[in-house]
Amino acid sequence: MDIRKVSKPTLRRLPLYLRYLKNISPDVQYISSAQIANDFNYDPTQVRKDLASTGEIGTARKGFDVQSLINAIEKFLGWDNVNDAFIVGIGNLATALMGFNHFVQYGLNIVAGFDVDQSLIGKSINNKKVFHLEELTALVQRMHVKVGIITVPADYAQSVAELMVEGGIKAIWNFAPIELKLPSRVVVENVRLSTSLAVLTNKLKNL
Amino acid sequence: MDIRKVSKPTLRRLPLYLRYLKNISPDVQYISSAQIANDFNYDPTQVRKDLASTGEIGTARKGFDVQSLINAIEKFLGWDNVNDAFIVGIGNLATALMGFNHFVQYGLNIVAGFDVDQSLIGKSINNKKVFHLEELTALVQRMHVKVGIITVPADYAQSVAELMVEGGIKAIWNFAPIELKLPSRVVVENVRLSTSLAVLTNKLKNL
Repeated sequence: MDIRKVSKPTLRRLPLYLRYLKNISPDVQYISSAQIANDFNYDPTQVRKDLASTGEIGTARKGFDVQSLINAIEKFLGWDNVNDAFIVGIGNLATALMGFNHFVQYGLNIVAGFDVDQSLIGKSINNKKVFHLEELTALVQRMHVKVGIITVPADYAQSVAELMVEGGIKAIWNFAPIELKLPSRVVVENVRLSTSLAVLTNKLKNL
Repeated sequence: MDIRKVSKPTLRRLPLYLRYLKNISPDVQYISSAQIANDFNYDPTQVRKDLASTGEIGTARKGFDVQSLINAIEKFLGWDNVNDAFIVGIGNLATALMGFNHFVQYGLNIVAGFDVDQSLIGKSINNKKVFHLEELTALVQRMHVKVGIITVPADYAQSVAELMVEGGIKAIWNFAPIELKLPSRVVVENVRLSTSLAVLTNKLKNL
């Protein structure tokens, strides 16, 4: 099975299963996909397919070993390895992201921030130091950081992304509301608060 | 055309077109869908379909009147009317969201925050006051607030959502990493940072 071919909806459901499995009482050793499907109100076939994509197949009648399934999902998502990340644009959103210690569970460890505002340089946010943007490329190279997070205003996002790629960043988590133009080898995942809001307000209008 | 039937991908692209159109020089009165498709590197047929969903059809040869198209998209998204919103769970993320003044352009005006932490009650964040959660239901009713934003930890999200719905909230923007169980008449839009990260880290792992 080519794991690269897994669908985005499956990828988006796996973290939900993971959280659910981690909340199961330690007394419970096995769980069936039917039980999971029931608790999520999902189609059982879909749940079975989702879980199969991680390589876990379970045992007849018993179902899945809970801990094995947790390990398989974490491995599949790449959350068994922690990637160091740099974040550029130190406003409230970046401060929130730098404060979320549980991102480490999701394979992400924000190790430093970058900005051009002199009043921020040298400060620490949740023990992560803020450097001047000028140092970004050199530090990406020296520390072999692979993930960049962009929380700058839209007008600066493209040039920040190019700096990141120049340094060697391989994956960008982009919170700026623009479409980045980068070489196709660079992984880009956009978090679009405005488009999420569009879905909400459009539905609300049509109630 | 039943506008409720528009696809989510279309809904997610419309805010991008909107931002693009607002950045066009005021000297330019008309723009073609082909030009927009080219600038976004999208399929022209898709762009035409997306824009048609707003009811704008453009003029032969000239294309779309830029300002009319902006108005049509804003109206379609419900962004021509601003909805007041309450936010519950005043941590760094809520502080970031309360600081984003440009949400008003997206039809959302956060007017107050709620928490149970006594040290926060009575404070103001970006001129929005923080109230005790006990006051939520009464204030939703009194102020006819329709939108609730949930930024509490996962374990509290369901009970906060139920309080919101009890007060009369019709749409919930949920940042907590759980699936809310609510009456189907309530609109729920989830922002899942962990699932977005799952897409990123899985792709990075497979590079």
